Amino acid sequence: MEKIVSLSRRRGFVFQSSEIYGAPGGCWDYGPLGVLLKNNVKQAWWQSMVQERDDVVGVDASILMNPKVWEASGHVTGFSDPMQDCMACKMRWRPGDFEGTVCPSCGGKLTEPRQFNLMFKTFMGPLEDTASVVYLRPETAQGIFTNFDNVLNTTRKKLPFGIAQTGKSFRNEITTGNFIFRSREFEQMELEYFVKPGTDEDWHAHWLKTRLEWYISLGMNKEHLQMRAHCKEELAHYAKACSDIQYLFPMGWSELEGIANRQDFDLKQHSKFSSKNLEYFDEETKERFTPYVIEPSAGVDRSVLAFMLDAYTEEPDKDEIRTVLKLHPRLAPYKAAILPLSKKEPLANLAKEIYASLRKAWMVTYDEAQSIGRRYRRQDEIGTPYCITIDFDSLNDNMVTVRERDTMKQDRIPIEEIKAYLFPRLKGEMK
Amino acid sequence: MEKIVSLSRRRGFVFQSSEIYGAPGGCWDYGPLGVLLKNNVKQAWWQSMVQERDDVVGVDASILMNPKVWEASGHVTGFSDPMQDCMACKMRWRPGDFEGTVCPSCGGKLTEPRQFNLMFKTFMGPLEDTASVVYLRPETAQGIFTNFDNVLNTTRKKLPFGIAQTGKSFRNEITTGNFIFRSREFEQMELEYFVKPGTDEDWHAHWLKTRLEWYISLGMNKEHLQMRAHCKEELAHYAKACSDIQYLFPMGWSELEGIANRQDFDLKQHSKFSSKNLEYFDEETKERFTPYVIEPSAGVDRSVLAFMLDAYTEEPDKDEIRTVLKLHPRLAPYKAAILPLSKKEPLANLAKEIYASLRKAWMVTYDEAQSIGRRYRRQDEIGTPYCITIDFDSLNDNMVTVRERDTMKQDRIPIEEIKAYLFPRLKGEMK
Repeated sequence: MEKIVSLSRRRGFVFQSSEIYGAPGGCWDYGPLGVLLKNNVKQAWWQSMVQERDDVVGVDASILMNPKVWEASGHVTGFSDPMQDCMACKMRWRPGDFEGTVCPSCGGKLTEPRQFNLMFKTFMGPLEDTASVVYLRPETAQGIFTNFDNVLNTTRKKLPFGIAQTGKSFRNEITTGNFIFRSREFEQMELEYFVKPGTDEDWHAHWLKTRLEWYISLGMNKEHLQMRAHCKEELAHYAKACSDIQYLFPMGWSELEGIANRQDFDLKQHSKFSSKNLEYFDEETKERFTPYVIEPSAGVDRSVLAFMLDAYTEEPDKDEIRTVLKLHPRLAPYKAAILPLSKKEPLANLAKEIYASLRKAWMVTYDEAQSIGRRYRRQDEIGTPYCITIDFDSLNDNMVTVRERDTMKQDRIPIEEIKAYLFPRLKGEMK
Repeated sequence: MEKIVSLSRRRGFVFQSSEIYGAPGGCWDYGPLGVLLKNNVKQAWWQSMVQERDDVVGVDASILMNPKVWEASGHVTGFSDPMQDCMACKMRWRPGDFEGTVCPSCGGKLTEPRQFNLMFKTFMGPLEDTASVVYLRPETAQGIFTNFDNVLNTTRKKLPFGIAQTGKSFRNEITTGNFIFRSREFEQMELEYFVKPGTDEDWHAHWLKTRLEWYISLGMNKEHLQMRAHCKEELAHYAKACSDIQYLFPMGWSELEGIANRQDFDLKQHSKFSSKNLEYFDEETKERFTPYVIEPSAGVDRSVLAFMLDAYTEEPDKDEIRTVLKLHPRLAPYKAAILPLSKKEPLANLAKEIYASLRKAWMVTYDEAQSIGRRYRRQDEIGTPYCITIDFDSLNDNMVTVRERDTMKQDRIPIEEIKAYLFPRLKGEMK
């Protein structure tokens, strides 16, 4: 983990938020490479969950919602951690975070544990009173449930169908940590998949399998993934079943994604609190009922972290250690690097022409500094799958050398065929 | 505007946030078509501003930042509207929003106007005290300035270079309105382009031209766009010059994007408040100085609205009125619609094969309900540039009919050539 944190900082994947001021706890910024990796993860999810399926559509709901949403969902009353206040110095503590029965700071007397809500609260409108309290959403899911009826009416979808969303959520966690694994501001990729009651267990099984395969299809090592079913005691009261997809992080097996069978809890709650009928009318059987929902809910930031950890490799190369980020080509920040053997014309001109042409299709970088060996190393370390070297022969034979990151195999190919050469390889269909 | 609001609601572009509860003021949700259009706008911006330029990199900074950032930027003291409180009923009013000198609600006496800050305030950590106050960012720009040093060190960029970012921002506006034009939660696309002082006026001119061309390149009518330079009285104290790109909205010429020459104000403020030297060292001249910055700052939501308004067309077609959303193919939510003339096999099978194959490359939809004429109309209204009709002849000749949205011209082409046919057309390179 330390190596990934250091690489992230050094090469521009992830920085601490507001670092020059001393960061606020638990917020992170994605740098020039990190934003590309993160966007690629989200796009791969969207492609598999929305674009390539005929039964899922997307939405993008607002972060600030009507506060009644969080009463209906149970977050206002139930989304909390127990905390104890020191009656002397007013510090607040979480039971279990300290030893002893008095304030760890001043030795004062502590209150009984009281529930402390994890939602960030703010005020909308000019007045700071209880009537204007709104919350930063602690999950994207409720923006889907509140749009269930709108989506149904505008798309005429029939069960089973899903609504997918990616976006920021916020939780005022007492304890953050493990780099970007747990932060107060984070991004989710959530699907709510609505099904007919009775078919829910089959669909739950479908989504467990589909989601696990997604991580593997993007190059994650099967051995580092496992499925963990929640036991009855762990299940939220509304869930019939829930399984986590876990990744073997350096701190141990931890959740990448939770896939829950939430039954009809959410739609029924919103029906009750909004007085809007959220039942579904089945045209075939002429029945009205509230759909059940299967929810695959993944964390973007922890997926990014897991893909980086899984891709990180150190291997001997002659007398040195080669650091390679073996990211799937679809996830790699840069798809190719253009490396001219000389900074001068006419070689630089030719290299820049190739650079400009490839950039229309992909994120591509250009590096002309230092030896070709060092440039390969710099690209290996950030996961660039293909290095394209333009040498003096290129000026005569109109060919370039393409080096593949993992095998270090080199192919000499005509300049006009670079795009056709890269196209299937960048989809991960061949090397 | 009413027609666009109605179309948005009816076809699933934009819904009111938390609509079933009565929406909170000034927040909107993007529905199944809206999220695709909005993502396409952001991707087109990113492609032109980051991917296709060698002098710009991206970041994705957090929404919650250290509050000192907003002291340095001037938002804590300067980002406010004057408000008057009623001493009797405690209601708060903005001078100018009412007539008379007493409370419009109860007739009570009003305080003198006081400054009311437009930043949303929340509390991070377990305690709700002044030490834990953080703000929802009112602009994405400061997440760029605070990362200036990190980006410089990790990318080794030389002046001139830029840092680009898209993301949500929040302003507790007293008055919202004009649909998604002005909302409390909105999304920005901002570039901070750092230059050597002295070259700033040329670069300001460059960005004015480049950004205006971007809207036109995506199909916006030139006649509906204008540039408006701020006069001296309007300029923020730190700005040397600022011009707005305005669009002729139904409510009049209004800002789509502001392009300011902010000089060295931001970096100098952050240097001062953070005690971190944010100067640039010019290796050629061996000089140290604080770069000037040109800031093209665009609104995602108002761009989406302008693209929709500009694309909206009603034209006579026989005895009817045809509604067409003439969106640029790159912005259109669906690139093509697959329309089988029959719901039954074997036609449906062939249509679904084509659907599955195209979906790997693009967002594509499938519609088998009602007459082909009505299906064309439904696709026209949401801006789908190509309709692909599979008829009974297709089973024998392996050809389909492709209809273009704007011209309604039809081409009969082999099934195996559909992708090659669509590829240049969807980039807008030909019709």
